Amino acid sequence: MHFTSEQRLDDGVVERRFTLGDIPGILWTPADVSAPVPLILLGNPPLGLDRMYPRLLGRARYSAAEGFATATIELPGSGDRPRLPVVDRARAGLRRALEAGEPVSGEIVDDLILPLVDQAVPEWRATMDALLELPGIGGPVAYSGGVISIGVRLAATDPRIVAAGLFAGSFVPAVIFEEARRVTVPLHVLLQWDDEGNDRQAALDLFDAFASKEKTLNANMGGHTGVPQSAGEDAARFFARHLKQAPAPEASPGS
Amino acid sequence: MHFTSEQRLDDGVVERRFTLGDIPGILWTPADVSAPVPLILLGNPPLGLDRMYPRLLGRARYSAAEGFATATIELPGSGDRPRLPVVDRARAGLRRALEAGEPVSGEIVDDLILPLVDQAVPEWRATMDALLELPGIGGPVAYSGGVISIGVRLAATDPRIVAAGLFAGSFVPAVIFEEARRVTVPLHVLLQWDDEGNDRQAALDLFDAFASKEKTLNANMGGHTGVPQSAGEDAARFFARHLKQAPAPEASPGS
Repeated sequence: MHFTSEQRLDDGVVERRFTLGDIPGILWTPADVSAPVPLILLGNPPLGLDRMYPRLLGRARYSAAEGFATATIELPGSGDRPRLPVVDRARAGLRRALEAGEPVSGEIVDDLILPLVDQAVPEWRATMDALLELPGIGGPVAYSGGVISIGVRLAATDPRIVAAGLFAGSFVPAVIFEEARRVTVPLHVLLQWDDEGNDRQAALDLFDAFASKEKTLNANMGGHTGVPQSAGEDAARFFARHLKQAPAPEASPGS
Repeated sequence: MHFTSEQRLDDGVVERRFTLGDIPGILWTPADVSAPVPLILLGNPPLGLDRMYPRLLGRARYSAAEGFATATIELPGSGDRPRLPVVDRARAGLRRALEAGEPVSGEIVDDLILPLVDQAVPEWRATMDALLELPGIGGPVAYSGGVISIGVRLAATDPRIVAAGLFAGSFVPAVIFEEARRVTVPLHVLLQWDDEGNDRQAALDLFDAFASKEKTLNANMGGHTGVPQSAGEDAARFFARHLKQAPAPEASPGS
């Protein structure tokens, strides 16, 4: 992990840009910390970090105020990273199917999502490896938002993830649906009830499939991008509950 | 409305028992208030006020700390009030159907719920009339919990109700489902996802039917009675948002 820039924002939050191999990323850490802080991996849709920056920054500031570090990385095929031809072809096929009013085939969904998941999940794990070696980052780690299939596989396969906040807003391949049955960490799932671009029944079936004993579905009106402020606040409290439960290690007497 | 007892609880909340005609009820008001306060009508399941008292008191204390008055009344057919023979017969029919593993007919659901709604809703309205004449109670008014069909009809028909928190935990007659399409106030609907005594699909269909532009479905694990503390807190914040939005009338200059 190589830091390429560092600036202190007006509220004291430290923003550091980094690269991990050829993957660009951003790390935000709270203004004043004495002990290592928990970490939120902030997923993003495949629209590029530059375009998503204002929204990501807003959430990072919010998390910093709670005492958490937040990190995000550019998804494969997004921003300046090399395109993923299979995904691009699937996206064109998706557009044709939607324009023709035809059902979206499982093959299109697989091609649209699985190459992204297959490449992004190891990248997120490598990012976690590097971040958790930094002196100021102590864990526990939560995953938040972005492409839900990436969050599902990360939560199903990486024991460092202790909680996940997911946004039921994109297509989910059948193989990811099966992986959801192995997710056991506490989950907070946002669903936009009147999101016409989203298959509501598939989202409800996915929520049902998670094995987590503690899972919350928070469904609201407002369309795909209209998540109400109160739902964002509920999600933030979910992270606070689960990341603050594990106390930071105390200094030993006399140290 | 006739007050039969008054006591100040250890946290300063004032609990007053009352009767309205032959209907017993309880009113809780905050410790220290200078201006008229908003009112939450606290629904309850048809199990009797005495049995529900500890849980109702807990919610009333919470609301009082937010600056809200809370009131509840004994449902028709519950506690010491005259039984409702049609409802009792329907309850026996429901038990037989469930034991035989048979589907619960629409007739049983209608007989179980509609006599309760038909009698309880005018009683709640009369209670509201009386409470809003008290000097310390100013509105706005929200309805919370209890039998969901009662909440639906109250919210659909009484313009004084500005928000409702409902618990999707009981059978809903077809006629109530239609009334739900006329509900437009902000709604917060709790659903216990793994509640085996509850028809989850019917609850989702009911949530979909509400015409409210602002509605939240908050679904959790924990079985029928296992609503997690965080869900209760989310619901409390819903009431705080909607009851505190309308400012109390200001004193006019010079008064």
